Amino acid sequence: MTNYVYITRRVVFSASHRLYSRHLSEQENWDIFDKCSRAKGHGHNFELFVTLKGIPDPVTGMVMNLSTLKTILQEHILDPMDHRFLNDDIAEFKDLLPSIENLVIVVWNRLKPHLGELLYEVKIIETENNFAFYRGE
Amino acid sequence: MTNYVYITRRVVFSASHRLYSRHLSEQENWDIFDKCSRAKGHGHNFELFVTLKGIPDPVTGMVMNLSTLKTILQEHILDPMDHRFLNDDIAEFKDLLPSIENLVIVVWNRLKPHLGELLYEVKIIETENNFAFYRGE
Amino acid sequence: MTNYVYITRRVVFSASHRLYSRHLSEQENWDIFDKCSRAKGHGHNFELFVTLKGIPDPVTGMVMNLSTLKTILQEHILDPMDHRFLNDDIAEFKDLLPSIENLVIVVWNRLKPHLGELLYEVKIIETENNFAFYRGE
Amino acid sequence: MTNYVYITRRVVFSASHRLYSRHLSEQENWDIFDKCSRAKGHGHNFELFVTLKGIPDPVTGMVMNLSTLKTILQEHILDPMDHRFLNDDIAEFKDLLPSIENLVIVVWNRLKPHLGELLYEVKIIETENNFAFYRGE
Amino acid sequence: MTNYVYITRRVVFSASHRLYSRHLSEQENWDIFDKCSRAKGHGHNFELFVTLKGIPDPVTGMVMNLSTLKTILQEHILDPMDHRFLNDDIAEFKDLLPSIENLVIVVWNRLKPHLGELLYEVKIIETENNFAFYRGE
Amino acid sequence: MTNYVYITRRVVFSASHRLYSRHLSEQENWDIFDKCSRAKGHGHNFELFVTLKGIPDPVTGMVMNLSTLKTILQEHILDPMDHRFLNDDIAEFKDLLPSIENLVIVVWNRLKPHLGELLYEVKIIETENNFAFYRGE
Repeated sequence: MTNYVYITRRVVFSASHRLYSRHLSEQENWDIFDKCSRAKGHGHNFELFVTLKGIPDPVTGMVMNLSTLKTILQEHILDPMDHRFLNDDIAEFKDLLPSIENLVIVVWNRLKPHLGELLYEVKIIETENNFAFYRGE
Repeated sequence: MTNYVYITRRVVFSASHRLYSRHLSEQENWDIFDKCSRAKGHGHNFELFVTLKGIPDPVTGMVMNLSTLKTILQEHILDPMDHRFLNDDIAEFKDLLPSIENLVIVVWNRLKPHLGELLYEVKIIETENNFAFYRGE
Repeated sequence: MTNYVYITRRVVFSASHRLYSRHLSEQENWDIFDKCSRAKGHGHNFELFVTLKGIPDPVTGMVMNLSTLKTILQEHILDPMDHRFLNDDIAEFKDLLPSIENLVIVVWNRLKPHLGELLYEVKIIETENNFAFYRGE
Repeated sequence: MTNYVYITRRVVFSASHRLYSRHLSEQENWDIFDKCSRAKGHGHNFELFVTLKGIPDPVTGMVMNLSTLKTILQEHILDPMDHRFLNDDIAEFKDLLPSIENLVIVVWNRLKPHLGELLYEVKIIETENNFAFYRGE
Repeated sequence: MTNYVYITRRVVFSASHRLYSRHLSEQENWDIFDKCSRAKGHGHNFELFVTLKGIPDPVTGMVMNLSTLKTILQEHILDPMDHRFLNDDIAEFKDLLPSIENLVIVVWNRLKPHLGELLYEVKIIETENNFAFYRGE
Repeated sequence: MTNYVYITRRVVFSASHRLYSRHLSEQENWDIFDKCSRAKGHGHNFELFVTLKGIPDPVTGMVMNLSTLKTILQEHILDPMDHRFLNDDIAEFKDLLPSIENLVIVVWNRLKPHLGELLYEVKIIETENNFAFYRGE
C-alpha cells in the first residue's frame, strides 16, 4: 500500500458565456442550444474543484501545499476567467464552443503543465442541476 | 392570534450583468466596481426567494396555491430574465444600475401588481457570499 | 439595549403526507393539489428550524441549553412525526390538511407550552424550492 | 488521449417508501429496519444524479444534449416515481425491497436502454446523511 | 416608500473555543456544557453573515460598497478571529463565555463603530444544526 | 454483472488541530503552515463520508445495515475525535502531522478492521474549499 491520497481545492468564479456555433444556422443553434444561444450571453457562478492524487510528504503531511495550488489557480484560471465573457476573453474558445464539457478540458489543459502527474480531476459545477468532470482520459 | 404564515417559493435563473454607470468616468467605474465593470459583463446563478404572508385557507391549507405563484414568477421574472443580459434586456435597467440591491427592488415592483398585500419579501442570492432582500419599506 | 439574541436549532425528519380534502370533490382535489393528492401520499425530508429569542445567561452564555431544546424537540416533534404518515399519525391532521403552512402552525402549537415566551419562530423547509415559517402572529 | 468527459444531470423527486420484507417476521422487520418499517411508509426528497461518460461533439461541445437527457429522465423516472409510494407504484418493487441500494439499480436498469454505453453512474441522495451509487459493475 | 434594501455579506473563519466557566464547578461545567467543556477546546467553521439596511445610492446602486465592508470584516473580525482559540485570543472573552450567543454580540460590538446605523444583523452559523443572530435590540 | 452498489454514510464532528512539525524550525513552520501553525490550534466541522462497496442482500436490500455502520463510526471515530484536540487526543498524531491528508488515512486505518473488504473510500470535508479522500491504494 502506497498511501495515495486525493486532495481537492475548490474555487468559485463568476463568468458569462454563449452557446452558439458559427458552423450551424441560426435555426440549428436555437434548436440545439435554445435560450443558451442568445446573442449577449448569460452567466453562472462556476464552482471549480481541482483534485490532486499523491503521497503525503512524511514531514508536512501534504500532497502539495494548498497555498501553492491556490496561487496556480489564481494565475491560470481565476485571473483570466473570473468576471469575464468566456467566448471572447479566453483564447481557447475562439474556435471551440464554451460548453461545460469543453470548459473542464480547457481548465485541465491550462493546469496540466503546472501540476503534472499530481493532477487527477477537474470538475466544474455550472448550476445546481448540471456539472462535468475530466480526468485526462 | 390570526395565524399569519409566511410561505416562500425559490426559483433560479442564470443571467449576466455589468456594473457600470454612464454618469461616472472610466476610472471611477473601475475604482468602484472593479472587475464587475468589465465591458462584456459576467454572470451568476441568481437564486430568487419570494415570500408571501397570509392566512392559510381553512379548506386547502394554502396561503396561495404555489402553482399559481410559479406561473406568475415564470411570466414576470423567469421569461424576461433567465439567460439574459440584464443591462440590455430589462427595461428598468436602461437608466438604473443592475446591482443586486436594485435587482431586488425591480423584481418586487414587477411582482407587486400580481401579489398585492400577500407579498412580504423578495430575496436574491447572487453568490454564496452576498445576497440582498427587500420588503417594500 | 437589552441584548436579545436569537438562537436556532435545526432537526430533520423524514415523513410522508397527502394533500387532499374530504370537503372537495376528486376533481377539485386534483385541480388544486395535482400529484400531491395521490392516494398513497409522498414524502419529504423536512428540515425544522426552531428559533428562540432571549437574553443570554450571564454565567452560561446561553439563551436556553440546546440540549434541553433537543430533548423537547425529540419528544414532541421527532418521536411522533419522524418516519410517519402525517395525515394518519398526527392527531391535529385528522380534520386539518397537512400543508406546509398548517404544519408550521401545528409544530408551533406543540412547542409553545414547553418554550413559552422564548419561542420566536418555527420554520420548515419542505423541498429546496419551498418552505414556510410561523411566528405566532 | 481521447477526451472522455463526464457530465452529470441532477433531478429531484419526492416519494415515499417502506422498508419491509414479506420474507421476514414482524419482529425481524423491526429489528432490521426499525422505524423505516412502519406500515404507512415515510418519505424523502430523493436527489438523483445521472452521469454520462463520452466524447464531446466537435461542433456542439456536448456529450449528449442535456435537454434530451431531461426528457428521458422525465419519462422513465420522474413521471412514474415523483409523488408516488414506491412499494406499490413501481413494478420492480413488487418483489424487491425499495432500499436506496436497490433503487439505484432500478433507476439504472430503466435508463440503460435509452442511454446505452454513455451511462456511467446513477447516484441517489436519500437524506443528507446517506446516499448510494451504482455503475453497472 | 423609501426603498430600504437589506444587503448581506458572508465570510467564513475557522476557530476553536471552549465552553467552560470559572464560576462553576468541574461537575457543573460538565453537566451544562458536556463535551464542549473539554480542556483543550474544539473548533468550527464559523459562517458569519453581516446584514446592512440602507437606501441604494442613486448612481452606484449600492447600500455600501461591499469591498469596503470586506475590508472592515477582514480587519476587525477575520484577522483577530480566524485560526485562533477564541477564549484566549479575543479580549472580550477573558471574562465572558464564548458561546455562539455571546459571539454574535461581540462581533456586533466590534462592527458597530465602523458601520453605524447601517448595521442591521449579525448572524453566525456554528454547525449545520445551530446558529444565532443579533440585531442590537 | 454482479450488482456492486456503493453506499455512503455521512457523520459530522467538530474538532480542533494544529499544523506544526517538531522537525521544522519555527520559521519553516510559519512559511509552510502559516496561521494553521498557531500554538493553540483552530477548528473545523469535519464532514466524514464513509463509502462501502458490496452486493445488496437479496432479502434486506442492504449492503450493510447502516445502523451497524453508525455504531462502528460512533465507537471508533466520533467518540475519540468529536470535540477533541486531534494533536493531543489521538494516538496516531503523536508523531504524525494531523493534516487532512493524514486524517483520512488515520480514519481508514481505524475503520478497516471493522469493515474489511466492504470499505471503499473515506472522505473528509475540512472546509467548503478543501477536502481529501483515501481508497487504501
